[in-house]
Amino acid sequence: MHEEIAGNAGAKVLLARVQDLIGHDLREVEQVFLAEIESGHPFVGEVLAHLTSYRGKRLRPMLVLLSAQACGGIEQAHLVLAAVVEMIHTATLVHDDVLDEATTRRHVATVNSRWSNETSVLLGDYLFTHAFHLTSSLGDATACRMIGRATNVVCEGEMAQVADRGNLSLSERQYLDIIEAKTAELCAVSCFLGAHYAGAPRSTCEALDGFGRALGIAFQIADDLLDVVGTESKTGKSLGTDLQKQKLTLPIIHLLAQSSPAEVETLRELLAHPSPHTRATLLPLLESRGSLQYARDRADEFTVSAREQLASLPDSPARQLLEDMADFVAVRSA
Amino acid sequence: MHEEIAGNAGAKVLLARVQDLIGHDLREVEQVFLAEIESGHPFVGEVLAHLTSYRGKRLRPMLVLLSAQACGGIEQAHLVLAAVVEMIHTATLVHDDVLDEATTRRHVATVNSRWSNETSVLLGDYLFTHAFHLTSSLGDATACRMIGRATNVVCEGEMAQVADRGNLSLSERQYLDIIEAKTAELCAVSCFLGAHYAGAPRSTCEALDGFGRALGIAFQIADDLLDVVGTESKTGKSLGTDLQKQKLTLPIIHLLAQSSPAEVETLRELLAHPSPHTRATLLPLLESRGSLQYARDRADEFTVSAREQLASLPDSPARQLLEDMADFVAVRSA
Repeated sequence: MHEEIAGNAGAKVLLARVQDLIGHDLREVEQVFLAEIESGHPFVGEVLAHLTSYRGKRLRPMLVLLSAQACGGIEQAHLVLAAVVEMIHTATLVHDDVLDEATTRRHVATVNSRWSNETSVLLGDYLFTHAFHLTSSLGDATACRMIGRATNVVCEGEMAQVADRGNLSLSERQYLDIIEAKTAELCAVSCFLGAHYAGAPRSTCEALDGFGRALGIAFQIADDLLDVVGTESKTGKSLGTDLQKQKLTLPIIHLLAQSSPAEVETLRELLAHPSPHTRATLLPLLESRGSLQYARDRADEFTVSAREQLASLPDSPARQLLEDMADFVAVRSA
Repeated sequence: MHEEIAGNAGAKVLLARVQDLIGHDLREVEQVFLAEIESGHPFVGEVLAHLTSYRGKRLRPMLVLLSAQACGGIEQAHLVLAAVVEMIHTATLVHDDVLDEATTRRHVATVNSRWSNETSVLLGDYLFTHAFHLTSSLGDATACRMIGRATNVVCEGEMAQVADRGNLSLSERQYLDIIEAKTAELCAVSCFLGAHYAGAPRSTCEALDGFGRALGIAFQIADDLLDVVGTESKTGKSLGTDLQKQKLTLPIIHLLAQSSPAEVETLRELLAHPSPHTRATLLPLLESRGSLQYARDRADEFTVSAREQLASLPDSPARQLLEDMADFVAVRSA
C-alpha cells in the first residue's frame, strides 16, 4: 500500500475513492464555507476570492466527514464543523505566511506578498472569527468549547515554535510537543467531533481523537521533511523556510544527535547563519547519516499508531479510507 | 457636567464612582481574564505578563457590568462576558499595533516593538481564541453567536479601513460606517449582553445596544481627534499615525469639504506624501476652519443620542454612570 499511493498516481486513486464516498458532502461543505465568508465590501471580497486558489487538500474536512461516516453517518452538523475546521486551518495558513515571509503557496502568490502583511493579519482574524461564529450556529456550546480549546492549543503551539527559533538544542520531545499542538490538535478535534456528532460513545470519540492526533503528527513530520527534500515546482510553495528561520525539524535534530562534538560545533555554526545554500549543503549529510530515513521511520510509527486507534470500529469503506489517509500523509515525502 | 469631567480630575472622579459601584466586580473580571490566559510555556507567559501594563481603561467591561446593573443586577455570566470583550479588544489592539507599526501604547513598548510582528500576530490570535473559548464556558450558544458576529463586524471594519487607506475622497458617511464597525460594534454588544444576561426584555437590550453603539462612535471620533491634537506625553501612545498611514478622519474630511478646489489640490498633495511635520502643518488650518470643533460637535451629537437611548430605564446609579461615561468619552479631547 505504501508504495502504491506514495506517488501522484496513488494520491489520485485515494482522492477518487474519497470523492466516490463523500464527494457530495465535501461540495456541500464548500458551499457552507463560501456562504459564511461572503462579504459586501469589494476589497474584502477580492481578498476572500483569492483564498479559493490558496486552499488545498481539504484534509481536515475529510477527517470530520470520514470519522462521522465511520461512526454512524454524516449529519448537517458535520458539514458545518467541516467548514469550521477548514476555516481555522486557512486562518493559520494566512498568518503563517506572514510569519514565514512566504511568497507562494500552492503555486499562487500569498496574501502577504500580493497585498500586504496587514491585509493578511486582518484576513486571518476575519477567518478565525467567522469560524467561531459558524460554530455557534449549531446552537450547541459543546462544539464552541471544543473548537475554542483546540484553537487555543494551536496558537500556543505556534507561539512556542516562535520562541524556540534559533534554539539549536531543541530536543525531539520538544519538537513533537510543538507539532502536536500546532498541527495534530486540529486533526484530533476534527475526528472527535465527527464521531461525537454521529452519536458515537465517548470511548470511540477518544479513539478517533487519538487517530487524528497521530495522523497529524505523521503529517507534520512529513511536511517538515518536504521543506528539506522537496522541490518547489512539485510542492508549490517556498521551501527551506524552516532552515532560514532556524526552526529545527526532525532530520536536523537527528543529525545533531548523531554527530561528534566537533561536528555539532560546525553544524551549529552553519545553522546559526543560514544562507540560500544551507539546504543543499546539509542534504548529502542528512542522507548519509540516515537522518532523512529516521524522520520517515518516525512518521511511519505514528501512522501505525493512528491505524491501531481504529481497531474497535466496524469495518467500513470510511474506516478503510481513514487508514489509507494515515498511510498517505506519511509517505508524501518518501 | 461636560467641563467638570473633561480634564484628568473629571476622569478621576468618574472612575472613583465606577469603582465605588462595581469595583469589586471589575476585580473579579480581572481574575477571570488572567486565569483564562495563563500559560505553562515560559515565553508565552512572559509576553502575556507584558499585557498587564499594555491594557487600559477597561471601558468595555464597565459597559457590560453597568448595563447589567442598570437592568437588574450583575451575575456570574457578566463577569465572564466582561473578560471576553476586554480580551477581544486587547487582541485587536495587539494586531492594530502591528498594522500601525506603533512603538508605544499606554507609555510602554508595544509587543511588536519589544518582541516582533510575528509574536504580536500570534498573541492576538491567542487572545481571540481564548475569548471564544471563555464565551463557550457559559454553556449558551447565544453568547457565542453574538460575540462571534460582533467580532466578525469588527474585523470587516478593520479590513475596510485598510482598503480605504490613501482614499483621499473618503466621505463622512464612509468614515462613520468604518468606525461603527471597528469600534462601536463591540461596545454595542457589551451593553446588549449586559442587559440580556440581567434578564432585560428584548426592547431594553436593543436600547442598550443603541447606547453602546452611539457611545462607541463618539469615543472613536474623540480618539481620532486625539491623534491630531493630542500630545504623546499625555496619551502615552504614538500620535499622528492616521496621517502617516493616510487614514482620513473626521477633521480632515471636514477640512477638505470646506476648501476650494485649489486648496483641496494642495491638501491632497500634502496628505498623499505625509511627513513627521504634516500634523503640525495642518493643525492651524484645522483650527481656523472649525474642523476640530466640527468633529467635537459630531462626537457630542452621538453622546446626546447615546443618553437618549437610556430614557426608558429606571433611574439608578448605574444608569447615571452610563450617561456620564457617554459624556466623558466624547470630551477627552476637548
